[in-house]
Amino acid sequence: MRGEARRLFFVTGNKNKFAEARQFLPELLQANLDLIEIQGIDPKSIIRAKLLEARSRIAGSIIVEDTSLEFQCLNGLPGPLIKWFLKKMGNKRLAELAIKNNNTSAKAILWIGYIDPKGGIRYFSASLKGEIVSPKGHHGFGWDPIFRPLGHSKTLAEMTLAEKNSISMRARTFEKLRSCLQADFRK
Amino acid sequence: MRGEARRLFFVTGNKNKFAEARQFLPELLQANLDLIEIQGIDPKSIIRAKLLEARSRIAGSIIVEDTSLEFQCLNGLPGPLIKWFLKKMGNKRLAELAIKNNNTSAKAILWIGYIDPKGGIRYFSASLKGEIVSPKGHHGFGWDPIFRPLGHSKTLAEMTLAEKNSISMRARTFEKLRSCLQADFRK
Repeated sequence: MRGEARRLFFVTGNKNKFAEARQFLPELLQANLDLIEIQGIDPKSIIRAKLLEARSRIAGSIIVEDTSLEFQCLNGLPGPLIKWFLKKMGNKRLAELAIKNNNTSAKAILWIGYIDPKGGIRYFSASLKGEIVSPKGHHGFGWDPIFRPLGHSKTLAEMTLAEKNSISMRARTFEKLRSCLQADFRK
Repeated sequence: MRGEARRLFFVTGNKNKFAEARQFLPELLQANLDLIEIQGIDPKSIIRAKLLEARSRIAGSIIVEDTSLEFQCLNGLPGPLIKWFLKKMGNKRLAELAIKNNNTSAKAILWIGYIDPKGGIRYFSASLKGEIVSPKGHHGFGWDPIFRPLGHSKTLAEMTLAEKNSISMRARTFEKLRSCLQADFRK
């Protein structure tokens, strides 16, 4: 692949996420597009709709990401709807919800969708199991303060970025994407 | 208004909802379109996107509806996201969630959006306060078995359709829409 088709865009308005992603894929370009997010609880459908919309607006390969946080006490919800729960309830009340339900098990999943210039779509994901706890720590963002990965004594927000990256699902998902892209580029 | 512009469509795939709506607006026509539902917790934004998409596909006036169920223990959620919660958790677990959180207060809200042939949009809504209780009754649909309206001893699913219609927010919302349409048609 050469020229325009070789360009790889990450659609995000979040500078921190873009900087983090660029550590794994230095060739990444940022595309700050406001994409329609369809309602649903299936991450692949949400991501697919975003990729198709982005593709109608930029030329090149494109990636988008979506994070799910599954509470066992909510049978897997809020899942991809976590952003609305965080916005409406905040970390403290979200944690209380799991604690009052006597089930604090949770799973964080990062999904990345990739569309190549011919319209082929692939999905990559990695997950991290943990416990929902009362908010602790001031690093990170989003629900990091209430998520304590299994086998660790700190929440994601109590860890340094290096500690977080060493276990987080973001690093593993981008690694899968990178291996796949390298195989494509060698073709 | 005459001819095409006078036609009034209700976009829904649900025959029961359409039959119920037709009791209030006999001139209503059914449009069984599959509309994209954007993710969010603001009913007006969700409805607006549906109306604009429907308008690009049918000529005439159009209405769509969306129901929210707000749990006080979730600070108003799931709201318009209730359909996903019902699908994923079911009525029994949804009720347990409120009960374990020691706060079973809830509010059901029906929203109707109306777009006229010139693209003017209006919103109508009515709400019904109640308590979330363990599932009871076999009438109705959706979350009717776990919603007991304030001042009543039965859940919506324990009521006959006539009883339900006499208190439900659907009747009141359609009544508001009907008054508004009649005023328009007299112009």
